[in-house]
Formats: sequence, structure tokens, C-alpha cells
Amino acid sequence: MWVYIKNLKDYIGKEVELRGWVWRSRSSGKIAFINMRDGTGIVQVVVEASSVDEETFKNARKLRMESSLIVRGTVKNEERAPGGVEIHAKEVIPVQIPTEDFPINKPDHSIDYLMEHRHLWLRSRKQMHILNIRDAVLKAIRKFYWENDFVQVDTPIFTGAIGESAGNLFEIDYFDYGKVYLAQTGQLYLEAACMALGRVFNLGPTFRAEKSKTRRHLIEFWMNEAEVAYFEHEDNLKLQENLVSYIVKYVLENAREHLEALNRDISKLEKIEPPFPRITYTEAVKMLQKKGYDIEWGDDFGGDEETEIAKQFDKPVFVTHYPRKAKAFYMQPDPDNPDVVLCDDLIAPEGYGEIIGASQRIHDYDLLVERLKEFNLPVESYDWYLDLRKFGSVPHSGFGLGVERTIAWIAGLEHIREAIPFPRTLYRVHP
Amino acid sequence: MWVYIKNLKDYIGKEVELRGWVWRSRSSGKIAFINMRDGTGIVQVVVEASSVDEETFKNARKLRMESSLIVRGTVKNEERAPGGVEIHAKEVIPVQIPTEDFPINKPDHSIDYLMEHRHLWLRSRKQMHILNIRDAVLKAIRKFYWENDFVQVDTPIFTGAIGESAGNLFEIDYFDYGKVYLAQTGQLYLEAACMALGRVFNLGPTFRAEKSKTRRHLIEFWMNEAEVAYFEHEDNLKLQENLVSYIVKYVLENAREHLEALNRDISKLEKIEPPFPRITYTEAVKMLQKKGYDIEWGDDFGGDEETEIAKQFDKPVFVTHYPRKAKAFYMQPDPDNPDVVLCDDLIAPEGYGEIIGASQRIHDYDLLVERLKEFNLPVESYDWYLDLRKFGSVPHSGFGLGVERTIAWIAGLEHIREAIPFPRTLYRVHP
Ligand SMILES: [Mg+2]
Ligand SMILES: [Mg+2]
Repeated sequence: MWVYIKNLKDYIGKEVELRGWVWRSRSSGKIAFINMRDGTGIVQVVVEASSVDEETFKNARKLRMESSLIVRGTVKNEERAPGGVEIHAKEVIPVQIPTEDFPINKPDHSIDYLMEHRHLWLRSRKQMHILNIRDAVLKAIRKFYWENDFVQVDTPIFTGAIGESAGNLFEIDYFDYGKVYLAQTGQLYLEAACMALGRVFNLGPTFRAEKSKTRRHLIEFWMNEAEVAYFEHEDNLKLQENLVSYIVKYVLENAREHLEALNRDISKLEKIEPPFPRITYTEAVKMLQKKGYDIEWGDDFGGDEETEIAKQFDKPVFVTHYPRKAKAFYMQPDPDNPDVVLCDDLIAPEGYGEIIGASQRIHDYDLLVERLKEFNLPVESYDWYLDLRKFGSVPHSGFGLGVERTIAWIAGLEHIREAIPFPRTLYRVHP
Repeated sequence: MWVYIKNLKDYIGKEVELRGWVWRSRSSGKIAFINMRDGTGIVQVVVEASSVDEETFKNARKLRMESSLIVRGTVKNEERAPGGVEIHAKEVIPVQIPTEDFPINKPDHSIDYLMEHRHLWLRSRKQMHILNIRDAVLKAIRKFYWENDFVQVDTPIFTGAIGESAGNLFEIDYFDYGKVYLAQTGQLYLEAACMALGRVFNLGPTFRAEKSKTRRHLIEFWMNEAEVAYFEHEDNLKLQENLVSYIVKYVLENAREHLEALNRDISKLEKIEPPFPRITYTEAVKMLQKKGYDIEWGDDFGGDEETEIAKQFDKPVFVTHYPRKAKAFYMQPDPDNPDVVLCDDLIAPEGYGEIIGASQRIHDYDLLVERLKEFNLPVESYDWYLDLRKFGSVPHSGFGLGVERTIAWIAGLEHIREAIPFPRTLYRVHP
């Protein structure tokens, strides 16, 4: 019976069939050891010349790294082994034996070489753990929204409308229609949908034609956005801290072995629970100025400033109430100070930077038109978006969470490119 | 306390606050009735002049369709009412009252008008039910893979590689790199990933620059693909029938009220369980010829032929073993007849057409190169894909499920465009 390695503990004393690949192997005279992987784990297969036929033993000895093979044998308790079991082989059937060395076989390949071989690099242990953490983060995001009665509304990628800024957009020729753009955000669509369904979220790829090469940027990345009708700034902050805490807790509970395998400092993650600290933009600027940063009220924060702010806390920190002119046109002014808006950036601890951008949205028609003009945006392109303020407009709020940045933080990765299966960066779309 | 309408049954006799929009309203002398919606349901609010102050009664009377409002009142049992409850209002607070009639207010708007107002059309009852069914289908897909130990591997949209055909691709200028294409499938990437993780799936948007205007085509649509190492043709068929049956069952159990509201014939869906009937392509051609269709062995099926095949069965039907030349280059030849391949199309009942395309993939390096040449494809573009056949190649199989076609079938929609929140068709990317 075909069994996956991660389930072997349920088959102790039984005969099973494993299907997988050679991770490492060695042999000496009358015994061969194959460390075999199948995508769910690694197990040691023991092949003794005395207990198998000659063919099987010969097969076992000629296998090299990443040969594919089928093994039939008995599952034995072996407390010294990583998964607590090993396999005593009766049959070893090679499926395909490479004629060349596996390309990913040294500890010191350059990052460019690894990226060029991403299709094979994925088989390495570290990448396997990261992809399992990614999977857990994606599950957590969905489960959070399901448990909180959100409806998934998939927002379009092709869009004639313009998001936050007209720059950094990829263009497409759309039949006879002319140019369309790849969406940088589904927010405007979620705003329409939350008026129909109350609480909505999306989760999918998004695109920025940004010439950034930092360890925090990808050209194609996944984003989760949420939007809730009748939510105001304070509700929005609570939703965000609940979501982020839920994700971290879910990963700790369901993918802890993968965090441990990456040597992630788990104690740092165990501190992540609501409420998160909050400082205003104005307080943050003052703090940075005291520390000698060359920043003035009105400037946006860069990576260094975000890291400095994050250093003050051991949880993600909300920076709220940014200057109106530093943020997008649709953000609701603070009634106590119309120079700032009811928004927040959520900055992850340990230097991982901004993982959420959020705001309450302007719900008043006249104010929204005024702001479009203030930002020199073409009011006519926002025709349908303005309709939302004409027909039963309500206060509403939402945010966007960068999925890969969240994964990079939780998994403790040095660079965001390992947080996605096939990264697209400024110079790379291959493989 | 703010409560959503769908939860009102838990608050009978209590005072609650509702936040939403006017669905319909009428008043007569001393009493006003507001049918109020909040995205989770509709409830009748009763406003009696004798039990509220003058201001509240005046407010209640001036509300028009899609006015936004907050209502405070008591939840009363009312068996004649749709949700079994109604609200006896104490306060009615208008949030915003439109100055124009709501644009979606007649039963006979043209489809083009409705599509142009999609951002508002979403608020109509039918669209709300469809979006909830979509949400349930998406949940079901994910839960199926979670319960079956698949890892989600998000495949890239930007790709230099070429999928099944070089036609129908959208092009992008990618910085200094040159042209890249929007992926039509993540299959090749999932093939790489299943060698690393065993069982993998994706779920996301995909794009076809196809000049089709049928009720089964969208330019931008969602696809779910799965790929399993060591799965052969038969395993693949079972996985597909289990997935599709799971989705239908999940929707029946979790979104039945939405199916009922759309007058879907539920008895037809209740028949959907494994095993699904199977016929070979060759049998299907013979059957069609007998019925007078002008089709020859080697031709692909069109919509009419698919509908005719589906008519013979009350479950989805697998059409298997298509001619090698009618299908993609990567499909594994049938060992019993190398003119056909180990593939299937799954055709939904009731004329909804093909919802899955599937195959076992060629795992032999030399055969794959031969097939690339047979199809006149540039072998050098498939460098990394061919690597998968050099380093521990194994038999493997997978498929792609069209999400909107599946939704259209389950919800019983006439046109696929209503199965996605913001459809992109040949002439429409707005809103
Ligand atoms: Mg920022
Ligand atoms: Mg077909």
C-alpha cells in the first residue's frame, strides 16, 4: 500500500510502499542506507544484502541524489531516526536515475544560480519548509475570514480604472478596447462589493512595475485585502490585529515543525497577540528626529525608518494618522485634524517592514471629488467609484496585507524572494 | 448592539442595531415598512407612528431605495416573515439618502446596462445569491485539498515560458527583459512543484486573449489546477470525480438557501457522486455520428457536441483517450494505442460544457523532446521543464478546473459572466 512518509508512524510493523526520491544515500559492503524524500518528509531506508535479492541490492547501490524510486518494506520503530521510524526494505525499484549530478548539490551556490534553478531548488529542505509555512499562512488567512463571516470577492486583474497612482502600472493591449492595466489593488472593487455583501475579502496576485531591488520587493506578489461596510478607523485596527495574531497563532499550531527546522526564534512569535501598540505618524517623526534621522513632518518613511520604529516594540506596531498629502486620495480626514487621515501602516517586528496599509475611506461624495482634484486625478475615470457615494454611501474601512512580507517575517527569511514559489524580480521571470 | 440580519434569530426579544440599506419600503398613514438589507439578509422593519418620535417616523417615510440607514429596535418573532423575524423600530437614522433613483430598479434592464452598472448590480438579490454560491465553491475547493494533504503552490502569472499554444497570450513589456506573457496555466510550474512536495494545487486568475463571445468564455477567469507525483491516469480520474462531488455536496450543505433562492433544481445536484460515467473519445465520435453530427475522428468537440454527449448522462461525464494530435504535446500516450493519449475532459451535465481538462504527463525525456518537435514548439524554451525529466522523473498527472464554469453549472446560470464579481469580456473591462 502506497503511504506518504509523514504518515509512517501509523504503520509500524506493517508493509508499505513508498514513492519518492533519493535525498542522500551511502552504502558499505553489505548494507545500503537511502534517505528518501517524498515531499511530505524524509525517512531512512535500510537495505541489507542478506535480506533482499541481488537485484534489489544492486539497485539500491547505484541510486544517486534525486533518483526517483519506489521502495517496499517494513516500517520499524527507530527512536534515533528523525521521524521516529525507518524502513527495512524488501524491494527497491528505481524509476529514473539521472545521468548527471543534481544541480543543487553544494552549500555555496550563488543566489542567481539558485534562482535560475528554482524548479529544482524547490526540492531542497529549506524551501520545502518555507513552502509549507506559506501554505499555512494562506490557510490561516482564509480560515480567519470564514470564521468572521466574510465573503470572498475576487477582484479583477484587468482594469481600466487607476488605483493609487498612475505610475508603476503594467499595460496590456486589450483587443480593440485599447490599453488596460494590471491591478495594483482590488480595493475600489471591494468597496463596491462591501456595499452589497457587508464584509468582503480577496486573496490573489498583484503587480507593481516598480524598479525596486530591495529584499522587501517583488514585481508579482500576493495580497489579501478586506473591506467592511460601516467599519470605522478603530474597527479597522482591531480587525487587522486580530487577523495578524490569528495567522501567527495558526502557523505556530499547524506548522511549528517547519519553523523549528528553519531555526526560527519561536519565542518572538509567541508574543504576537492583540492589542498591538500604536503610535501616530507625528509621534514617530518626533522619535526618529530625536534619534538623529533626517526626516521632516510630511515625509514618508523608508525601510530604515520603519526598522527603527519597529525596534521599539516586540509586536507589530500601528503607525496611524499620516499626513493627508503623503497618502492616497480616498482616505478619510481625521475630524480632529484634517491635515492627517484615519489610516494606519502596520509595521512588522524585527525589521520586516510594513505588512499592512489601511484606512477608513471617504464616504462623502463632495469631499471625494475635492480630493481627486487635489491629487490631480481624472475625476471621470472614477465614475463608478463615485457612484458608491451617491447611492447609499456609508462609512467603510479596509486594508491590504502583503502575503510574502508576512511569510518572510513569520518564517524569518532574509529576502522576500524565497517566500513565493516562483519569484518575479526586476531581472527575472525564469523559470 | 450591532447585529447582522442573518443572526437575528439569536436575538429574539432583544434590542439590536442594524446597519444597512433600504431594499424596498412603503408607508401608509401611521405605519411604515422598510425591507432592509445588510449584505447577509433582508428583514422587515416596522415603524409605527405611535411608538416612535416624530423625527424617526418622518425619517422612515422619506427613505428611498438604497438609502443607507441605521435602525435600532426590538427583534420579534414573526413566522410569516421570510427570516422568521421582524424588527419593531425605536430609532431610524438615515445615513445617506440618494438624490437620484437607484439605477438598477427595473426588471428589464439590458444586459449591457447591467454590466455597465455591475458595481451597483451586485446589490441585487440574484447577484448576492450567486456570489455566496461562488464563495461556497471556493471554500469547497480549498477544503478538499486541505483534507487530502495537498500543498497550495501559487504559480506565477508573468511567464517567459509558453503554455499549450503560443496564440491567445497577452503580452507585457517587462522592464529591460523584453516581452513576457500572462500565464494561461500554471501546470508546468505545478509539475516542478509536485516533484518537491508530492501533491500540489493552485487557485487563481488566468487569462486567455481569445476572441470568443460564447456564454462559456471569459477573458479573465479563475482556475484550480492540481498535480500529483506518481499519479497515473486512473488516479487522476478518481481525484477529479472526488473533487467535483465534494464541491457539489459542500454547496448543497452550506449554501442550499442560495440555490433555492435561484430556483435551482436541487434534485439534479443531489445525484452528483462518484463514480462518474466514462466514454472514450472514439466512442463519443461514433455516438455523435449516429446522431447525425458532422464530425470525424480527429476533430475536437465544440459546444454542441459537448452538450449532446452530456445529455446521455445525469452526472458529469469523462471523455477520455483523445487523439494525440488534438491535444497538448505533454500528454502521455496510451501504451495500448499511441495514437491516443491518457487524458480526459470532464463535461458537466445540462449543457454547461467542459469543466475540467486533464492528463497524465509524459515523464520520459526523449519522448517529450520528440513531442515538442512534432508540435513545432521551440525545445529551448522548455529547458527547465525538460530538467524535470532529467532529475528523478516520475509518472505524474493533473488537471485544471474552470471555476466560473463550475459555478455556472452548480448555480444554474445562463451565462458565465454572472459567476464572477467583475467579468472581463471581449468588449468590457469596466467597471
Ligand atoms: Mg509606507
Ligand atoms: Mg475540449
